[in-house]
Amino acid sequence: MITLAVDCMGGDHGPRVTLPACRNFLERHPEVALLLVGQSDKLGAFSHPRATVVAATEVVAMDDTVETALRRKKDSSMRVAIRQVKDGAAQVAVSAGNTGALMAIARYLLKTLDGIERPAIATRMPNAKGGATTVLDLGANVDCTAEHLLQFAVMGSALASVINGDDQPTVGLLNIGEEAIKGSEVIKEAGELLRSAGASGDLNFYGNVEGNDIFKGTVDIVVCDGFVGNVALKASEGLASVIVGFLKEEFSRNPLTKLAALVSYPVLSALKRRMDYRRYNGAALLGLRGLVFKSHGSADEVAFEQALERAYDAARNNLLERVQARIAHAAPLLRPRDAASPAAELGTIT
Amino acid sequence: MITLAVDCMGGDHGPRVTLPACRNFLERHPEVALLLVGQSDKLGAFSHPRATVVAATEVVAMDDTVETALRRKKDSSMRVAIRQVKDGAAQVAVSAGNTGALMAIARYLLKTLDGIERPAIATRMPNAKGGATTVLDLGANVDCTAEHLLQFAVMGSALASVINGDDQPTVGLLNIGEEAIKGSEVIKEAGELLRSAGASGDLNFYGNVEGNDIFKGTVDIVVCDGFVGNVALKASEGLASVIVGFLKEEFSRNPLTKLAALVSYPVLSALKRRMDYRRYNGAALLGLRGLVFKSHGSADEVAFEQALERAYDAARNNLLERVQARIAHAAPLLRPRDAASPAAELGTIT
Repeated sequence: MITLAVDCMGGDHGPRVTLPACRNFLERHPEVALLLVGQSDKLGAFSHPRATVVAATEVVAMDDTVETALRRKKDSSMRVAIRQVKDGAAQVAVSAGNTGALMAIARYLLKTLDGIERPAIATRMPNAKGGATTVLDLGANVDCTAEHLLQFAVMGSALASVINGDDQPTVGLLNIGEEAIKGSEVIKEAGELLRSAGASGDLNFYGNVEGNDIFKGTVDIVVCDGFVGNVALKASEGLASVIVGFLKEEFSRNPLTKLAALVSYPVLSALKRRMDYRRYNGAALLGLRGLVFKSHGSADEVAFEQALERAYDAARNNLLERVQARIAHAAPLLRPRDAASPAAELGTIT
Repeated sequence: MITLAVDCMGGDHGPRVTLPACRNFLERHPEVALLLVGQSDKLGAFSHPRATVVAATEVVAMDDTVETALRRKKDSSMRVAIRQVKDGAAQVAVSAGNTGALMAIARYLLKTLDGIERPAIATRMPNAKGGATTVLDLGANVDCTAEHLLQFAVMGSALASVINGDDQPTVGLLNIGEEAIKGSEVIKEAGELLRSAGASGDLNFYGNVEGNDIFKGTVDIVVCDGFVGNVALKASEGLASVIVGFLKEEFSRNPLTKLAALVSYPVLSALKRRMDYRRYNGAALLGLRGLVFKSHGSADEVAFEQALERAYDAARNNLLERVQARIAHAAPLLRPRDAASPAAELGTIT
């Protein structure tokens, strides 16, 4: 039986969203158990034969600094949830809390895997091929070296192979032109490292890709630094919601367009479902000695349940062991040529 | 009378697209003249009282290196078009050719304005407020210092004030969180410079913005380095075309959905028009001693005509003088604290 530790207090809505999502998830999966972590008075009413409340007296707020989350709230629901993974009581932790705090606590408690300097955040974005493109990093690291990008590529390959069941998923390096000559010095160097890794069979390197390739589905995994990945993700979310807004506006313009909306209902529902970012909720924190998944802070029940699904998929498919095996195999390439400078360390979102 | 120099050979389609667009443009604007630059045998058939063919024997190919474009094709249509601006025969040049080559030739022939180290590429992206957000840089500079970002902000303000008729357009610094503490060292430093510029009245600084703010229309101008801007632009274009693809697929699924498409025709046309990237075609190369506009390489007639419109707007509204005036006013802030390193120079797309 797989056990998930759920930070029930995290996110914009806390237990109001997390508890109903947990109940649905338990009903959908008769073979899982949940540890519901949070303030007892908020979770006490929840009762289910496969759910156990684990008390945590504090809550990391969405605007808490990493310092506060890490040093002053040692009994936070986020931290206690991750501790369940460290202690072996759960195979994976899920939280909708503050990303910076989650990453810092996870890194502090679980430590990084051998060969990994920087954990990364990976999520999936829907593509034109009907599948999803795994993109990383999405904001954990704003200043990356070429070696970090290679580490992301190896970890992303493990994640995508678990999700898609394809042992040799293709990796693209996000750049501003397909030609190898383009991009910054770091990107050029990363391209060379990735080509070497491809040549030695450690990953299936496709080459450079551009922003539109994320949605075209040109490759299974797109690798980039956290600043670029975060901007691409949020710009896309922004555009998608503008388009939904346009559609609503145009369909409610007059009685005729309202009729059209009625007639088009099945089409619009299908479109809404395909564009629904909630379906892709659940980002993996990769590179740690334990599995942690991050839900969008604004997730509703449907979205939070998706994050639980992602976490469960990762745990039952042994994502951790697969990442470890791939990292070990690629170890000779991953050895950093020079250690990260303190300044670069500071660049990590904190 | 405003005269535009048009590189009729550039882009994926050359004269087949540029000439019809020029004809429409001439008909729409009885007060403009065009210099049609290109190979005489390809343009010879075009005749209009306000159009003059200017011969250029060579063409910069879409995959030519900057080296080839700059050193080996000294009689290219792109170069001859820009020379018309330098010589005062035209007020603005427009090309759909290779971006790297266009920027390099424009920079070589026209030189940068005092106080500007790096020209930038700016375009407009549609936003939820029904207007457009000006975003720069979009790929001319992959490694930027804080001073470069400030220069972009000042130039972007001039461009937006010309387009929107608002003297104090708001500027946002693209970051991965609204909090000033987030982002790389360069971004943090740029934030400080922009705050100083705001305090001294050189620009209207809003603060940090995130990727989704581009489409929300939170600010008039979004400033970022060329790598990030290019990825955001292309990711958005990619997503928009995926959504259009989804719509087409869903509406053609069966006879019922086809009927729905018929009934929804006015709505779908309105949506298509609002999402039509061609309407936003035409990026400004800012920071040069002359006006140059870049059309998308794949532009069709409608899109190329839009680029001509953008260029014409800029010329008749004295964009160049306005940029110069703003740069001069902000000069004390713009003085770089240390000159760009040769390595950083190499980072410019080439």
